[in-house]
Amino acid sequence: MRALIVERKNVLSLRDIDLPDTLGPRDVRIAIDTVGICASDVHYYTHGRIGSYVVNEPMVLGHEAAGTITEIGAEVHNFAPGDRVCMEPGVPDGNSRAAKLGIYNVDPAVRFWATPPVHGVLTASVVHPAAYTYKLPDNVSFAEGAMIEPFAIGMQAATRARIVPGDVAAVIGAGTIGIMVALAALAGGCSRVLIADFSAEKLTIAGRYSGITPVNIATEPFRAAVARETAGWGADVVFEASGSAKAYGDIIDLARPGGALVLVGLPVDPVTFAVPEAIAKELRIETVFRYANVFDRALALVAAGKVDLKPLVSATFPFEDAIAAFERAAAGRPTDIKLQIRIPA
Amino acid sequence: MRALIVERKNVLSLRDIDLPDTLGPRDVRIAIDTVGICASDVHYYTHGRIGSYVVNEPMVLGHEAAGTITEIGAEVHNFAPGDRVCMEPGVPDGNSRAAKLGIYNVDPAVRFWATPPVHGVLTASVVHPAAYTYKLPDNVSFAEGAMIEPFAIGMQAATRARIVPGDVAAVIGAGTIGIMVALAALAGGCSRVLIADFSAEKLTIAGRYSGITPVNIATEPFRAAVARETAGWGADVVFEASGSAKAYGDIIDLARPGGALVLVGLPVDPVTFAVPEAIAKELRIETVFRYANVFDRALALVAAGKVDLKPLVSATFPFEDAIAAFERAAAGRPTDIKLQIRIPA
Amino acid sequence: MRALIVERKNVLSLRDIDLPDTLGPRDVRIAIDTVGICASDVHYYTHGRIGSYVVNEPMVLGHEAAGTITEIGAEVHNFAPGDRVCMEPGVPDGNSRAAKLGIYNVDPAVRFWATPPVHGVLTASVVHPAAYTYKLPDNVSFAEGAMIEPFAIGMQAATRARIVPGDVAAVIGAGTIGIMVALAALAGGCSRVLIADFSAEKLTIAGRYSGITPVNIATEPFRAAVARETAGWGADVVFEASGSAKAYGDIIDLARPGGALVLVGLPVDPVTFAVPEAIAKELRIETVFRYANVFDRALALVAAGKVDLKPLVSATFPFEDAIAAFERAAAGRPTDIKLQIRIPA
Amino acid sequence: MRALIVERKNVLSLRDIDLPDTLGPRDVRIAIDTVGICASDVHYYTHGRIGSYVVNEPMVLGHEAAGTITEIGAEVHNFAPGDRVCMEPGVPDGNSRAAKLGIYNVDPAVRFWATPPVHGVLTASVVHPAAYTYKLPDNVSFAEGAMIEPFAIGMQAATRARIVPGDVAAVIGAGTIGIMVALAALAGGCSRVLIADFSAEKLTIAGRYSGITPVNIATEPFRAAVARETAGWGADVVFEASGSAKAYGDIIDLARPGGALVLVGLPVDPVTFAVPEAIAKELRIETVFRYANVFDRALALVAAGKVDLKPLVSATFPFEDAIAAFERAAAGRPTDIKLQIRIPA
Repeated sequence: MRALIVERKNVLSLRDIDLPDTLGPRDVRIAIDTVGICASDVHYYTHGRIGSYVVNEPMVLGHEAAGTITEIGAEVHNFAPGDRVCMEPGVPDGNSRAAKLGIYNVDPAVRFWATPPVHGVLTASVVHPAAYTYKLPDNVSFAEGAMIEPFAIGMQAATRARIVPGDVAAVIGAGTIGIMVALAALAGGCSRVLIADFSAEKLTIAGRYSGITPVNIATEPFRAAVARETAGWGADVVFEASGSAKAYGDIIDLARPGGALVLVGLPVDPVTFAVPEAIAKELRIETVFRYANVFDRALALVAAGKVDLKPLVSATFPFEDAIAAFERAAAGRPTDIKLQIRIPA
Repeated sequence: MRALIVERKNVLSLRDIDLPDTLGPRDVRIAIDTVGICASDVHYYTHGRIGSYVVNEPMVLGHEAAGTITEIGAEVHNFAPGDRVCMEPGVPDGNSRAAKLGIYNVDPAVRFWATPPVHGVLTASVVHPAAYTYKLPDNVSFAEGAMIEPFAIGMQAATRARIVPGDVAAVIGAGTIGIMVALAALAGGCSRVLIADFSAEKLTIAGRYSGITPVNIATEPFRAAVARETAGWGADVVFEASGSAKAYGDIIDLARPGGALVLVGLPVDPVTFAVPEAIAKELRIETVFRYANVFDRALALVAAGKVDLKPLVSATFPFEDAIAAFERAAAGRPTDIKLQIRIPA
Repeated sequence: MRALIVERKNVLSLRDIDLPDTLGPRDVRIAIDTVGICASDVHYYTHGRIGSYVVNEPMVLGHEAAGTITEIGAEVHNFAPGDRVCMEPGVPDGNSRAAKLGIYNVDPAVRFWATPPVHGVLTASVVHPAAYTYKLPDNVSFAEGAMIEPFAIGMQAATRARIVPGDVAAVIGAGTIGIMVALAALAGGCSRVLIADFSAEKLTIAGRYSGITPVNIATEPFRAAVARETAGWGADVVFEASGSAKAYGDIIDLARPGGALVLVGLPVDPVTFAVPEAIAKELRIETVFRYANVFDRALALVAAGKVDLKPLVSATFPFEDAIAAFERAAAGRPTDIKLQIRIPA
Repeated sequence: MRALIVERKNVLSLRDIDLPDTLGPRDVRIAIDTVGICASDVHYYTHGRIGSYVVNEPMVLGHEAAGTITEIGAEVHNFAPGDRVCMEPGVPDGNSRAAKLGIYNVDPAVRFWATPPVHGVLTASVVHPAAYTYKLPDNVSFAEGAMIEPFAIGMQAATRARIVPGDVAAVIGAGTIGIMVALAALAGGCSRVLIADFSAEKLTIAGRYSGITPVNIATEPFRAAVARETAGWGADVVFEASGSAKAYGDIIDLARPGGALVLVGLPVDPVTFAVPEAIAKELRIETVFRYANVFDRALALVAAGKVDLKPLVSATFPFEDAIAAFERAAAGRPTDIKLQIRIPA
């Protein structure tokens, strides 16, 4: 099967590869239509690794995908060929201690697409468990379906935040994940979201959404903006979505007494955390690792029109231009929120 | 001071009355602008009592109010004369066990406007603790300000529901409170709300809001509609806002396994509750008594444009027509969601 | 295999029967040592049904079991033959919507021992998924191991109660389940438990535990005792463990403002529930259906000595006297908390 | 009134001082019996400040106190002269935003005994709001009553941990606060607590309690002990009670996937926090600032015998030896958990 493959650091190919193809009794086979490019896909291309996950063998990239079911396993009753779907890329061991607790995202046995040594789905067809496959409502396009995966991270963040209706949120970082978090926080009960970045372009995109107030921290400290907009009280929930260690410098100042910090971004540099200041406000701090049990909720919000992901697809490439798509993603234009690749039927 | 007074069952007067008027150091004085008529106001008029609360002395009615601060107590620093405000009508003992726990709404010592023997605010001016007074954002009108109190009940219901972002809600009853609950549930994180009533008029009003699906249970059982719209799984949260004992007949069927019921309506008739069926789904059941700590959140949602209360003001009466307003409220037109009275400056 | 079988209503046999015996790759085979008799086992014997579950075919009884592993499936790595274990009798579909959420107890697909048409384990050997099998710590006997199942119901109740450290609990009913609930509530963070029953014998047994105060409601209303012991404030958590519809008569009076009711008992008669009174205290009401994710926690508490289940085993019968054991259980001596049957190796 | 006063850094006096003495209508007057010495009292003595709180004027020390009511204000109904009581040393503004939310501990307006410029209670008599005064059950001594304040920190930690019955806890640090946390965690629902320290003496004291397993991290890394005792899964809740920045080095390793960290200790040195590792386990992190709404619960646990604070009183000094008591406290003997001072009637 033809696939977009990272051969090793800095080398991509669009070539044939043998992929596992056995349809189990509880699996479905899906013809892939659309795949989004994630920063992690790009990172495996440009660095050949993410932390301890190393590309030692050629690996198919891509894990943000939507498509059409072409075949179902013998015990699958809730899908039929022709169903339009999107897929949760991580599959846990349903018998694990974490999975039994409902937190299958932290099951150490999770197999996750395009995370070595597991292949991704930038290819024509894939087999996946029905239990981690989700039907697209009629008014949700493949492009939106392939956006559910990154939006799911925002949903997980909004869920773990335990938003109380009407909360004010502050989001650090207006990159793809920051915007996803902001949209999920708004749809998930916040009255408004202040979002901070250095990039005027990203802030412009975020600020087009009603309810999101962009704050350019090149010109004003975020803590000043949050204080002004909350009459000095602070935000109920602060989401860290930049992955910058520097964001921790004044993060405590952003939160109200008794508020919450939600850590989404993965900082590369060591983080110095102001424990005494966090204690003085008795903050709650949540962390977010991927997602569990949110794909159906994400789809419901998109189908209901409460969340509009369409403006975030910056460009769409045909499969034959997949490598060019990755080059553009690697270049990191500030106006590119999400690049997608379409695979011909 | 001239006030709208229930003298006794079935007798209203618009006449002068002596009212307490001392401004304490932490109080504010407010010139009332707008007061909404609540079903409880009407009930004191038509029945002379609600449960154990009996109109033994003439009592000023009205507790849904907005106005302008005219004077502040010596220790009040967060308000100034001229500030436009709305007021929380119940004031607890801040030292009580319940208040210390943050659940001041269930403090037995709460003094609540227009609940015997405490006077309401259908009069020109009132003194109130600053701590239970809330500034109206510039883009929130007095009419909306006077709607915050009934909306606060919806907010309390949405808060106690502990909505998870993207939840599907079912609301029984499309009266004033049912619509308030539906709006708060949507703004508070639900992807969509199904709302049930026998009144086509009320459903039409509710159904004008994006995200609310009206279900006329004169023609289709609610459980059938909920099952259809949730692929047989059930609603994540079911709000009982009708106050009808009959609503309990199939309420369990509406909820998904592990879902929640939120009881808002006060049934007059005895309720037979299907305990074994609730247990088989391991439902959580929350009850809602007035509200605590939601006025600021309610205002934030209205100011942000996430909740539009304006279409729910069905008619506005000048103060001199206050008795006519009550007569119309007592008549109960199905298209009347909220009647308000304006008091001249 | 020889087994204790309910042939039909009122007819028990101890006879050979063919039972499924295939060991899957993730299963273990267990030589049963001890099985407790549950009220549901007795009910299938005396009534031939529980609700919609009907004994249409002969069925092996028993679901409270402990034993020794004799064989493990090819993919089982956390057990070895010789391990002493107890077993969770309900096995869900790990891929179901409920199971993914961590609430596998409400998965409609659960297969539960000794619930028609699924056989129980009053027999020499059984095959069970390793994921629902739990190692007994060295200091936990088989008799205690077979008590983990009923104790798990108490644990589920204590968990869903969301006990705050130091809470005062009131438990209605001092039968087996009531005592289990009381012990779990105490171990789970309550400072003390008041327990009510009409049976002096049962109260005597319950009252032997430090921290449990028995209240004989033949001589004093429970609400009076609770009011006296809580200075009129009420219990933080009220557990209904009697299954009597009459218990609902004054259950609201037992709880403090903002407190919780936890419904464990399954009433046969219709329950009239005082919704307005529950709302006036803004109570939270939780229901308890079996258990999920508590067996390991239950074992940890028993192993640590925080919960002593040994005094609750009232008598132990050899397997050949299993029918006599059921007759005694059916007779319902007030001093019998739990009868157990031992199966020879 | 004679009092133990820190005049300035390194200078204590036992001398007369004028103290505020007006009894408000909702206040009580208390004859102090016993006062414990807190590390913060010692720190004001030895350093003249704690962070931004500076001893600019002579200040009475002491905030862990129990005594007997001698007079009550006109509106106090739940106390009478002669009542034995202990007192919550921090009094918020009951009208503040934080207090209304029930989190009065983080009200910036809190006035807290022996925190500049507020005097403490190492003196014969004090006036205090009745709402922050708690009756001692008959079986709770003054010595225990004066221990409720430090135990309350453990209670707050156990409460914010949201312990699930049967959880395994790991506590870093076996000083006074570490032991308080361990006792509260055990009483609050944990099955067992592993506690780590370098001090064999402190571990010996902690290890005398059933359910607490001491781990000497001079000889074995805590993560190794926790892994061994939890079969590699990790602790459900990890409490940081050492205040050492070094404790953060392997704190993530102690917790299970989806577990919680509870930060109690105030580190002086900057803390480097392993955000990516915390995210990979999707940990929840809670912080603990003093306490709110736990004094009554703490007393209930002590009165019920579930928590025994008596062994933790290492020595008791008469008031005239108060300075000697502080010198010993400042010396920091490893076997001294709590020193107390008794004030003659």
